[in-house]
Amino acid sequence: MGKMRSVSVIGVGLSKFGERWDASFRQLVAEAGVRAISDSQIDGKDIQAVYGGCMASGRFIGQEHIGALIVDQLGLNPIPSTRLEAACASGSVAFRNAYLAIASGMHDVVAVGGVEKMTEVSVEDAATALGGAGDQEWELFIGATFPALYALIARRHMQEYGTTEEQMALCAVKNHDNGSKNPYAQYQNKITLETVMNSGVIASPLKLFDCSPITDGAAVTILCETEKAKKLVEQPIEIAASAQASDTLALAERKSLTELQATKIAAKQAFETANLKPKDIQVAEVHDCFTIAEILAVEDLGFFEKGKAGKAIEAGETKLNSAISINTSGGLKACGHPVGATGVKQVVEAVWQLRGQAEGRQVKNVERALTHNVGGSGATATVHIFKRA
Amino acid sequence: MGKMRSVSVIGVGLSKFGERWDASFRQLVAEAGVRAISDSQIDGKDIQAVYGGCMASGRFIGQEHIGALIVDQLGLNPIPSTRLEAACASGSVAFRNAYLAIASGMHDVVAVGGVEKMTEVSVEDAATALGGAGDQEWELFIGATFPALYALIARRHMQEYGTTEEQMALCAVKNHDNGSKNPYAQYQNKITLETVMNSGVIASPLKLFDCSPITDGAAVTILCETEKAKKLVEQPIEIAASAQASDTLALAERKSLTELQATKIAAKQAFETANLKPKDIQVAEVHDCFTIAEILAVEDLGFFEKGKAGKAIEAGETKLNSAISINTSGGLKACGHPVGATGVKQVVEAVWQLRGQAEGRQVKNVERALTHNVGGSGATATVHIFKRA
Repeated sequence: MGKMRSVSVIGVGLSKFGERWDASFRQLVAEAGVRAISDSQIDGKDIQAVYGGCMASGRFIGQEHIGALIVDQLGLNPIPSTRLEAACASGSVAFRNAYLAIASGMHDVVAVGGVEKMTEVSVEDAATALGGAGDQEWELFIGATFPALYALIARRHMQEYGTTEEQMALCAVKNHDNGSKNPYAQYQNKITLETVMNSGVIASPLKLFDCSPITDGAAVTILCETEKAKKLVEQPIEIAASAQASDTLALAERKSLTELQATKIAAKQAFETANLKPKDIQVAEVHDCFTIAEILAVEDLGFFEKGKAGKAIEAGETKLNSAISINTSGGLKACGHPVGATGVKQVVEAVWQLRGQAEGRQVKNVERALTHNVGGSGATATVHIFKRA
Repeated sequence: MGKMRSVSVIGVGLSKFGERWDASFRQLVAEAGVRAISDSQIDGKDIQAVYGGCMASGRFIGQEHIGALIVDQLGLNPIPSTRLEAACASGSVAFRNAYLAIASGMHDVVAVGGVEKMTEVSVEDAATALGGAGDQEWELFIGATFPALYALIARRHMQEYGTTEEQMALCAVKNHDNGSKNPYAQYQNKITLETVMNSGVIASPLKLFDCSPITDGAAVTILCETEKAKKLVEQPIEIAASAQASDTLALAERKSLTELQATKIAAKQAFETANLKPKDIQVAEVHDCFTIAEILAVEDLGFFEKGKAGKAIEAGETKLNSAISINTSGGLKACGHPVGATGVKQVVEAVWQLRGQAEGRQVKNVERALTHNVGGSGATATVHIFKRA
């Protein structure tokens, strides 16, 4: 490994997340993109490349070549524009490669977007498209849906560690609490434990309110080499670490169902690179595609011992301004989960928290924030750590 | 732009291209991957990251999350693995980002694959999937197919420059000549001018033999930081330049139909970076998805003046061992066009030519080779230049 240039975030923007019948794929990109460029105080012509994360536009809107579409829509031709895909981790993988493009010395200023327009197809077609995140030959073809895969994980976690359905449900309750304070969130309503427990069973033990929704949305960040960033904006947010790891596509091939190896490996690398420990993080956006996924995440990232997260959540230890504030944006559960956008949206929230701009959900004394994005059932995981430059 | 680390190719491998009823998507990846790793003389465990180019696996095989699939299939977990998509330029865009990942200092050795399994769906479904490379809202939805878009380009080139159908056809004849000397090519049969001229009209003036085929195939290269590469293999092939540019997704928004701006911009940047001129290149793999595309390419890359390529081809000036040997592999036309693999296959051919390993199609005294890959009708273009390290 060689010496790398430091990279910082200088602008962020989100579209409103939700069922966006009023906006096309292109319009979502523009909505978030214009806000991010405006937030960065740079001119569009200063941007040297675009990276976009998108999972399944071919199935959702019949469109590939998303890099070209995004750069065209943002009026930024002829700079290079590239789409990355890693299922539900597409956004963070795009973010990571934009970071590398600057770290390499090729570019100084790069825009990274994540986008997904999911609500224009039927729920059945959406489930099929999302199934492409798992192993088509060995899982989907024989009938496993994504909730079914995570239900297997949940059952095993319950058996091994005594985790309860109520503890999982409390992740959703907390995330709706946080989402109620986020004007970009798909769901801004608080819910109770009873709401979750009484909701319909999707794949036992997971109920409707244990699952993240189908969402339209886009998120954009502007990255810049740090020394230049310091001249451009008041408070650049530095990428202290970027790590990514892989695991088997199919659950059946893994040694354990109760941890995601890819998360553990990426977290270890990220903490080493940043020379930090989990206790040094105040705010973390983690991948709660299902409530059980949040439990796995906070354990695998090292915030809680394996098997202890259920009780910690019950004790309120992941709420706003607790030991570690988890999913202040509302997470995938309440903010919504436009799959390709999620990894970038997590960065936007981390930046807002570090800048002190998270409004009603602002955590006190945030020095470092972490984002954690998972593809499929854990075949890809990324971890990024941020601090003020 | 900062100082970048130099990067070289140390291993290459192809699957046989063609209608591969005998091999799944996964098997194609393994076929090319094992050959590339073996060719590089390194151990799989020395590879630190994987990049994969693939255009439309969601539509072709119902599978996304291709990065995770590739790294899993190659037995290389848990290293990071990332899929890139830029329509028919997916392979070269993956190659470019793998190059940047090494140039950045993040990794020293990276595998880059390109793959597409296209023949398992109907021709109609394949055409729909490929249509995703163009503008779904403004082109495909109103009935334009890809051959139709390139037919518009061909008609305009004929009108402006007097280019003839025979001149276009001669591209196909030459590429079949070259393909007949390439054991990996989908078509290894020579054809005559009459074969092309008498073939069925697809979208006038383009006939069946003006069009590249539907192909299954994979291509893999192993990249390494150049100083390390010199210690590992006898003859590393250095990436002297990597450039990428974008243009509007829809043809209708462009100023000219007879040139691809993205190619011209990427070529200019690549030649400047490498401090070379078109006349310094002996071998070029260019994007001949249709014969007219090869004519545009050799003009836009600067090998021939605009409007003069038709006559040059007629005069045999792009044949093996002429002034500039174009598409020695057989090009997309005869070697085949598994869309995500093509950009990486072009690099494999360039490496073989620079190493003197291109067997019956070896060009004499190759000092520098160029690859040119186009996404859609030119909304993305990449140019790479190679030389012996």
